[in-house]
Amino acid sequence: MSKRRESLLRALTTRHGRKNSGYCLVEGLRCVNELIALRPDLIEFCVLREGVCADRLPGEKTTVLEARKFDSLAATVNSQGILAIAKQPGYVPLDAPRKDPYALVLDRIADPGNFGTIIRTARAVGLKEIWTVKGGVDPFGDKALRSASSAQFAVSIRLAGSLEEMVGALKNLGVTRFFRTEPAEGHSVFREPELFQESAIVLGNEANGAGPLPGALPLNIPMPGSAESLNVAQAATVILFESVRRMEKSI
Amino acid sequence: MSKRRESLLRALTTRHGRKNSGYCLVEGLRCVNELIALRPDLIEFCVLREGVCADRLPGEKTTVLEARKFDSLAATVNSQGILAIAKQPGYVPLDAPRKDPYALVLDRIADPGNFGTIIRTARAVGLKEIWTVKGGVDPFGDKALRSASSAQFAVSIRLAGSLEEMVGALKNLGVTRFFRTEPAEGHSVFREPELFQESAIVLGNEANGAGPLPGALPLNIPMPGSAESLNVAQAATVILFESVRRMEKSI
Repeated sequence: MSKRRESLLRALTTRHGRKNSGYCLVEGLRCVNELIALRPDLIEFCVLREGVCADRLPGEKTTVLEARKFDSLAATVNSQGILAIAKQPGYVPLDAPRKDPYALVLDRIADPGNFGTIIRTARAVGLKEIWTVKGGVDPFGDKALRSASSAQFAVSIRLAGSLEEMVGALKNLGVTRFFRTEPAEGHSVFREPELFQESAIVLGNEANGAGPLPGALPLNIPMPGSAESLNVAQAATVILFESVRRMEKSI
Repeated sequence: MSKRRESLLRALTTRHGRKNSGYCLVEGLRCVNELIALRPDLIEFCVLREGVCADRLPGEKTTVLEARKFDSLAATVNSQGILAIAKQPGYVPLDAPRKDPYALVLDRIADPGNFGTIIRTARAVGLKEIWTVKGGVDPFGDKALRSASSAQFAVSIRLAGSLEEMVGALKNLGVTRFFRTEPAEGHSVFREPELFQESAIVLGNEANGAGPLPGALPLNIPMPGSAESLNVAQAATVILFESVRRMEKSI
């Protein structure tokens, strides 16, 4: 493997390295297979640990390394002996036409596991894009990609500089209702009739919640138990699958 | 702090140490506060890093350590300068009367983050207990406790030696329907009328799914998108909140 590729690979474990290079690091059999299925055009090169079988990898782009060498490169990561370096799919411009009936907005989610899980779940329900606000996790970081099973290559991401900028962009694109999850009050996710109609649903940072949203409707996930709150990825899951349920003929 | 407490604390980061001692390690302000609220009787002692404020801690059981000393003890963990050592609440016997209208069964969930998230979500929907099968994650490990926000002290856990043994115990307690999540077919979680009536819902291991369950009904979570599967904690969340929705007057 060339020195250039080696240093690129090392750089991709840092946010700075990802930003400067425009590439990202995809690790593990499942995530690499999803990348191959979704966006083979973005693959720059793949690296295999000797003895690991992965017959779907593009042969002409794949380097096999001896175990010791592979491990020295992949030392900080949980790779299962398989890595791919891919161009980041990049962000969709804020003013591009919307692709979904409602917008899921993630306001500075900080945990890459939560962020990745939400992208993966959004993909499962058929959402085409996710709206994010600057100051959260790097969507193309290795942990976010792993938790998402590479769903970042199937679901587009938009990035606004602030929640205010995002609200403006959404309004320009015809969004008329803004919902903001609140712990103990508001419109029930199971009963609000217009939840998914030309709306934006904003989920906030794990520690601090979403930023101020003047005029937003409070949205509540009913919790009969004694817990104070849900993990943000679980809250997103309840909301996303409520949209699926409404499409189904439910009981 | 006594040598005995020091070595107990170190031992609790391993499964073996937790099993032998019967204690567990609760870290971070939120998790320790939940422990204090839920089961103060189980607290053996607390440890604070000097300068960290935690005014709800039981003073007579709390040791304040200088920063360097605290960090040497908490080196492997993400503690925010606050730890509690508590007796494990232990398992409920398999033949004790059931406390919930349906049983959520986790068949060898392997990831402590997933396991903890499911317990936390079960608590949020008001479930009193969780059924587990030997061979999965330690419910009282530090990562599982952290992901659960200490919900292990609010939700009881049962442990069977095998899925077969668990099915026998559930049948003895009046459970007549067994559902097993399947990726692409089966009764829809949103439409199956008897999903939560004297039933058991079995979620399987992340890599291998649930073990064989003769006679079980396949349960499907509809996924209009292109994803192959959901993370197991997201699947559990959809199921658990469907039970909440049915209690609400939904639209």
